[in-house]
Amino acid sequence: MTPIGIDATGTRQEFDSLGTVDVPADRYWGAQTQRSLQHFSIGTDRMPIEVYHAYGLVKKACALVNEKAGRLEPRLAKVIVQAAEEAIAGELDEHFPLFVWQTGSGTQSNMNVNEVLSNRSIQLLGGQLGSQQPVGPNDHVNMGQSSNDTFPTAMHIATLDAIDGHLVPRVKALHDEIAAKSAQWMDIVKIGRTHLEDAVPLSVGQEWSGWAAQLQACLQDIDHARAGLLELAVGGTAVGTGLNAPAGFGHDVATTLAGLTGKPYVTAPNKFAALGSLDPIVRAHAAVRGLAVALMKIANDMRWLASGPRCGLGELVLPANEPGSSIMPGKVNPTQCEALVMIAIQVMGNDAAVALAGSQGNFELNAMRPVIINNVLHSIRILADGCGKFLEFSVAGTTLNEERIARYVSTSAMLVTALSPVIGYQNAAHIAEDAVARDITLREAALASGKVTGEQFDAIVDPHEMIGHGVAGA
Amino acid sequence: MTPIGIDATGTRQEFDSLGTVDVPADRYWGAQTQRSLQHFSIGTDRMPIEVYHAYGLVKKACALVNEKAGRLEPRLAKVIVQAAEEAIAGELDEHFPLFVWQTGSGTQSNMNVNEVLSNRSIQLLGGQLGSQQPVGPNDHVNMGQSSNDTFPTAMHIATLDAIDGHLVPRVKALHDEIAAKSAQWMDIVKIGRTHLEDAVPLSVGQEWSGWAAQLQACLQDIDHARAGLLELAVGGTAVGTGLNAPAGFGHDVATTLAGLTGKPYVTAPNKFAALGSLDPIVRAHAAVRGLAVALMKIANDMRWLASGPRCGLGELVLPANEPGSSIMPGKVNPTQCEALVMIAIQVMGNDAAVALAGSQGNFELNAMRPVIINNVLHSIRILADGCGKFLEFSVAGTTLNEERIARYVSTSAMLVTALSPVIGYQNAAHIAEDAVARDITLREAALASGKVTGEQFDAIVDPHEMIGHGVAGA
Amino acid sequence: MTPIGIDATGTRQEFDSLGTVDVPADRYWGAQTQRSLQHFSIGTDRMPIEVYHAYGLVKKACALVNEKAGRLEPRLAKVIVQAAEEAIAGELDEHFPLFVWQTGSGTQSNMNVNEVLSNRSIQLLGGQLGSQQPVGPNDHVNMGQSSNDTFPTAMHIATLDAIDGHLVPRVKALHDEIAAKSAQWMDIVKIGRTHLEDAVPLSVGQEWSGWAAQLQACLQDIDHARAGLLELAVGGTAVGTGLNAPAGFGHDVATTLAGLTGKPYVTAPNKFAALGSLDPIVRAHAAVRGLAVALMKIANDMRWLASGPRCGLGELVLPANEPGSSIMPGKVNPTQCEALVMIAIQVMGNDAAVALAGSQGNFELNAMRPVIINNVLHSIRILADGCGKFLEFSVAGTTLNEERIARYVSTSAMLVTALSPVIGYQNAAHIAEDAVARDITLREAALASGKVTGEQFDAIVDPHEMIGHGVAGA
Amino acid sequence: MTPIGIDATGTRQEFDSLGTVDVPADRYWGAQTQRSLQHFSIGTDRMPIEVYHAYGLVKKACALVNEKAGRLEPRLAKVIVQAAEEAIAGELDEHFPLFVWQTGSGTQSNMNVNEVLSNRSIQLLGGQLGSQQPVGPNDHVNMGQSSNDTFPTAMHIATLDAIDGHLVPRVKALHDEIAAKSAQWMDIVKIGRTHLEDAVPLSVGQEWSGWAAQLQACLQDIDHARAGLLELAVGGTAVGTGLNAPAGFGHDVATTLAGLTGKPYVTAPNKFAALGSLDPIVRAHAAVRGLAVALMKIANDMRWLASGPRCGLGELVLPANEPGSSIMPGKVNPTQCEALVMIAIQVMGNDAAVALAGSQGNFELNAMRPVIINNVLHSIRILADGCGKFLEFSVAGTTLNEERIARYVSTSAMLVTALSPVIGYQNAAHIAEDAVARDITLREAALASGKVTGEQFDAIVDPHEMIGHGVAGA
Repeated sequence: MTPIGIDATGTRQEFDSLGTVDVPADRYWGAQTQRSLQHFSIGTDRMPIEVYHAYGLVKKACALVNEKAGRLEPRLAKVIVQAAEEAIAGELDEHFPLFVWQTGSGTQSNMNVNEVLSNRSIQLLGGQLGSQQPVGPNDHVNMGQSSNDTFPTAMHIATLDAIDGHLVPRVKALHDEIAAKSAQWMDIVKIGRTHLEDAVPLSVGQEWSGWAAQLQACLQDIDHARAGLLELAVGGTAVGTGLNAPAGFGHDVATTLAGLTGKPYVTAPNKFAALGSLDPIVRAHAAVRGLAVALMKIANDMRWLASGPRCGLGELVLPANEPGSSIMPGKVNPTQCEALVMIAIQVMGNDAAVALAGSQGNFELNAMRPVIINNVLHSIRILADGCGKFLEFSVAGTTLNEERIARYVSTSAMLVTALSPVIGYQNAAHIAEDAVARDITLREAALASGKVTGEQFDAIVDPHEMIGHGVAGA
Repeated sequence: MTPIGIDATGTRQEFDSLGTVDVPADRYWGAQTQRSLQHFSIGTDRMPIEVYHAYGLVKKACALVNEKAGRLEPRLAKVIVQAAEEAIAGELDEHFPLFVWQTGSGTQSNMNVNEVLSNRSIQLLGGQLGSQQPVGPNDHVNMGQSSNDTFPTAMHIATLDAIDGHLVPRVKALHDEIAAKSAQWMDIVKIGRTHLEDAVPLSVGQEWSGWAAQLQACLQDIDHARAGLLELAVGGTAVGTGLNAPAGFGHDVATTLAGLTGKPYVTAPNKFAALGSLDPIVRAHAAVRGLAVALMKIANDMRWLASGPRCGLGELVLPANEPGSSIMPGKVNPTQCEALVMIAIQVMGNDAAVALAGSQGNFELNAMRPVIINNVLHSIRILADGCGKFLEFSVAGTTLNEERIARYVSTSAMLVTALSPVIGYQNAAHIAEDAVARDITLREAALASGKVTGEQFDAIVDPHEMIGHGVAGA
Repeated sequence: MTPIGIDATGTRQEFDSLGTVDVPADRYWGAQTQRSLQHFSIGTDRMPIEVYHAYGLVKKACALVNEKAGRLEPRLAKVIVQAAEEAIAGELDEHFPLFVWQTGSGTQSNMNVNEVLSNRSIQLLGGQLGSQQPVGPNDHVNMGQSSNDTFPTAMHIATLDAIDGHLVPRVKALHDEIAAKSAQWMDIVKIGRTHLEDAVPLSVGQEWSGWAAQLQACLQDIDHARAGLLELAVGGTAVGTGLNAPAGFGHDVATTLAGLTGKPYVTAPNKFAALGSLDPIVRAHAAVRGLAVALMKIANDMRWLASGPRCGLGELVLPANEPGSSIMPGKVNPTQCEALVMIAIQVMGNDAAVALAGSQGNFELNAMRPVIINNVLHSIRILADGCGKFLEFSVAGTTLNEERIARYVSTSAMLVTALSPVIGYQNAAHIAEDAVARDITLREAALASGKVTGEQFDAIVDPHEMIGHGVAGA
Repeated sequence: MTPIGIDATGTRQEFDSLGTVDVPADRYWGAQTQRSLQHFSIGTDRMPIEVYHAYGLVKKACALVNEKAGRLEPRLAKVIVQAAEEAIAGELDEHFPLFVWQTGSGTQSNMNVNEVLSNRSIQLLGGQLGSQQPVGPNDHVNMGQSSNDTFPTAMHIATLDAIDGHLVPRVKALHDEIAAKSAQWMDIVKIGRTHLEDAVPLSVGQEWSGWAAQLQACLQDIDHARAGLLELAVGGTAVGTGLNAPAGFGHDVATTLAGLTGKPYVTAPNKFAALGSLDPIVRAHAAVRGLAVALMKIANDMRWLASGPRCGLGELVLPANEPGSSIMPGKVNPTQCEALVMIAIQVMGNDAAVALAGSQGNFELNAMRPVIINNVLHSIRILADGCGKFLEFSVAGTTLNEERIARYVSTSAMLVTALSPVIGYQNAAHIAEDAVARDITLREAALASGKVTGEQFDAIVDPHEMIGHGVAGA
């Protein structure tokens, strides 16, 4: 079997319907890829490589279905499948150089795949690169397909892989650590804070359980959103009607993809929506954005609770992973939290781009696909990695300053709330106001009010009795 | 029974823990509402009245549960329930004057409800307004509650009501009309357009089926998102621990609310998340935003397809509801489409605000609630009304310019695609390029190419054979 | 002179080119306004009344110019001007009922103005309402005009009025108070915080000077952005060519408006851009958004510095304007800060809507005007009012907890930074780390390190020497 | 002189205050860079290399000022300056590997620069790498500096370079080409379109002049915004007070930077704002976003006007750069327009991230810098490149379909507008309505109305007389 790679230098001539184009002789791509490189070298954003891996799956499945249907000769199908498997495995990555900013349908990336698999197939069969014989990029590799249906198919597959294989495991691990710490610290009473102001107590474990519950709900929502990605556009071809694909092609390809991946892919029930809109992936990013919203709250809480060490809240102690300042010696900063907050902000910005792009479809095509898939995979990538680092280098090593935590509880005037059902809200309010105004303890103010005795106060105002029932709260 | 209303003029003195305040004598509200009016008369955005109607349900349910538990005297519970029912029915609307821009917990609106129900209860019992006896706003109406748990509860209830009672029926009706027109026009062949450029044909009904499918998927996603709103924070009280509420209070109130509304409310499984975050309502708005994204595409498609009448696409004819121009006589514009596009844009902006606000919680409270509920209800309100008007005044009366539609099909060079599997992509491309370059018909160019005969061309290039299989597309 | 108002009940028949319509007999509006009310009763968002006041100015100026040019009979011009002045003065507000969600050009609001001024003019001349004689809404009130050029003109005027008359004075007042407190507290040394962590000291006045400087820069940017609004579209009529308006009309109307308002309005140098885009107002909102960004930081800083009173940072004491909690007696919250943060969030959401709408123009018209002007005036209104309340009820009454502030300075280990130039960064770092690890004072750790003597330490580590040079900082 | 590069393999030990770390022996970086690589390998986003080039300038300027002040030995200053110049020239790029997602202050990137310049300086002096002698990263390279003041300084410099050197020239070139085509086509009359509907005529040149005017205004606004970036934070050191920097340091460094770059840098008037906020760069991105908004309109207009070739508007003919479809032979798509629209969408999303990040500062530091600079440079990069490609491969080669353009003008019923001043709006409206309803020419309908004679019609309804006055429009 011919190994991957072209032992040539200089350029090779390739052609498409507009004429011939010189391409680097050691690359598999053809005329259209080269034209795109020339016309769209914009910025540094390359079409994410995951799209090509997913496209490999699409091409393999289509070739198998075409072969089975007797449309594609077995000897051609065999080499297309082999080339596709090489793409799936990442062995052809350097042959997929295109930029994100290209045609809005993703056609240039589809043609990149078609051209590379065509030439690799030709090579495997001992043919002449660039001849498009006996495996043409359009007539064989793209058989029964259009960019209009296969690109969103590859978008769905790539996104699902990123969610399932990258994001969800890391979020689950983060959740599990937070839940474990919640259990560990369930009985340590701390002061609650609402409006940033002292409130009634809860336990450290309860506070952490809230974060865990947020993440759990995000995972459920992501799981719901990913289900929408299981419906594939392939089979719709150019405008959704399936022109030039045989009846049942979409169904057969989806079934084949399900077999290849173990994910229950199905053919999209309406191909016009599947090509004309990108609604399912807009919804998927919204779920990812929901995770960002939750993580921003969690990371902010942690860095505020760790603020100090002497002039902040100082309840948590985060790991000191690196010197924090180039000028202030000995400074340690909540850098993992900051990175996660910035990631969350980026994801919110990405979400604005995704939704806007999703709204800009026209007729039979939403031609804003590259910007969408790039943002979607970007968000997933940085959230997944960010959660991984946040867990490993911040959450896992977080400890408590129990002395500080206890001190806050003992000084807060808001424990007065427990008196309210006994002496009434207004009386309780005046006690708390008096304690703060005169800078005395709550107990002193309570006794001074004449509304309760010391025995009553001690029996009622017990922080450990005020924290309710574990992870569920009330 | 004392009718609603206070027969008094001038002012009445009310008090709270900070002292006494004069309020308008003909209003039920008390000192804290008055303070909020003074301190927060910002802009013209009032807390949506739906929040107060929902709060009426919360207060009623809490009173019933408190009564049943023997915490609240039956004679007090009875009048609180009656007053709450008046609030639910909208009979006390003029007594809820507060602005959106207030305390971030919604406490001032909760106190507004507490004060109004307190004074109305006192009035029903023949007591003295402003005395807080025998029904105090904090000790009785707010018994077992905090703003921190009841305000998000009211947010959820108000949002669910708006989704179920207002938005969903209108979107369903719009979907049904689009689906009906899809069926009606399933066999009318039209040119497809991708990248705004001529593509292969589909049927008008298929194009409309894509829009219907988008709406159907949006409805499913909204249905999923609304489920998250069925989990209620009530019972968590101040910080989630349920302090000052008896065990099981949250569960009992949720069950009572389910009974009162017929919606399967349950108590939130984790009260710290339910108070510290607003994730479920952020997710609900994301689903609503998904609808806006879909509607923007649909409304844009319709207005473009109706563009003209003589210098545009001109496939659709929208109803002429009003003169379109103050200067150009006889002009008719796609105004309903424009309104819907603007609404979609507003909803996308609102979504940015909601997500950002959702990310800004701290510790035991997200204090960005008023801005969130205002945006959520705003989005739902304008989308629901907008869909209603769009259906009634545009979609329902839309007709086809069948002559124009047929003409486009007959002239398009993209029908060449059907030849591709027979003569190969490159040959087909050259035929199409030739037809456009020489401005001749596709048939003429095809015959000139020598690749097909007239008989072959006529057999293969039949638009009616190119449109696939109905609503499913391929 | 006939007073404002129509003494009639029931309905009156009005007509437009599509036929006749019944309107409320006591309203001045005509057929097209009524049609819009029927077709666009969407939500509760009404076209901001400021737009109509501004439109009054436009109509007055146009009538004056038309009269001067001999196109409009003086007796007609006179009543149109009078009616316009009534509109400007707000005396006709109840006759402008239309919704935001209408035609994207604002034509319906323009026709609303035309119809109201037409009928009011007819009334002043003793004619028959609804006759369009001798003052027709299109032929006379709208003479030389289109909605396409006058609506953006009214948008600019209304926005400038809101900026100049409402927003800027309140921001300036807020700036001045912050600057005054900065001066007052310039010598009070406090701990700095970076990454939420203890840093080197600065003075309270310096910290406040930063906020003042942010506001000052925002005011400068708003001043720049408002200049773009001085260029007016009027004169372009339907598509920018000025069809049906005499040469110089745009220039003359701009000059007249400048005379009427004292603002240096000019005619837009390119009318196609002035109608086809709304870029200047998108830019104006960006400047307003910049203010929101700054205010969010300022309000957050203030509420964090005031957090506590016992378990937070507690450096600032904000006024206690109202009880903060319905369940926690005696609680005081930073409610003005929260309201301002929520306002900032809303403005950021509005900005997303404005920019998106600004991008959606097509050809000779951006038909997203109502959503833009509504968001722009909304943002300005709530920012202006919000700043006013924030100043009056929070900033003005803010005081310092000087004891707390001093304590933080005395305990912070980051004062070690001053030693760095003397003993080197690494040595200094080890001292700080030792102080924190062993919970000893910085001085103790420094002496233990053997790197400095007590005399050296006391000479070098003097917080009052570490705070640089007043408002400029370094 | 020692050439750049380290001839070593394996690892080298480096240290910082937390201990020793192994780094790749052939890299100049030190312990803190290595720690960051370990803790923050998140996604694929690297800190933009432009930041390091700018940082080179900062380090050079600081070394020069420190040397001049006698604080830094000349022999050390000399090598630091040389190393900095190598960084400026991009010769050290491979030694700056850090990720965007790191500490929010950018400290790790500052230390990366400090470490690389330290080791390179040591190498130049023949010392031992990793010894921090005689040039330490903190004590010498970072002398008088903090990340807190130098990182935003580098942000400003990098952004200004990107604006001045990359973005503005490409936007100007695009503007110039559009303006040239506007002049070329100033007399070709075409139909106007408002609300997508036929309107009165203008010339092709006028339409293009609108786009040119939009770009011109964007350039002016960018020029204004860039001025805010000329104010530099350097000199404020850790919290704005300038601790550990001599008096005048910020002024001297800014002046030196002005000399080195030819840009009139000044020291920021308030260092607390310069460190605590990132408002100037938020404003700069808003101006960049304004350009995206304008470009989205322009690119959309062009692709719509080029839609077809047979079933669309078809007024413009864009260059056919590549085959448009993998399935539809001969298809040509407006791909450059699509790429630019996607870029505009990305920039709007980036803007949301930038503004949100800008609002999240706390106290003496906005710790969201990396996400901001990455988005700012990303936006500028893709807009600049995108404009360049759009100009070269689309706008420059655009031609007119004059036959189509003329046909539209001749058929439009909206020319009736010219009759309005003569026969009144309502009569004109009925003529237009009749023409459309009966599908006859406007002239036919006009004569049928009896309101004008043929002579009158021909004299009045002359499209060439209806297009006003060139580039100014009205």
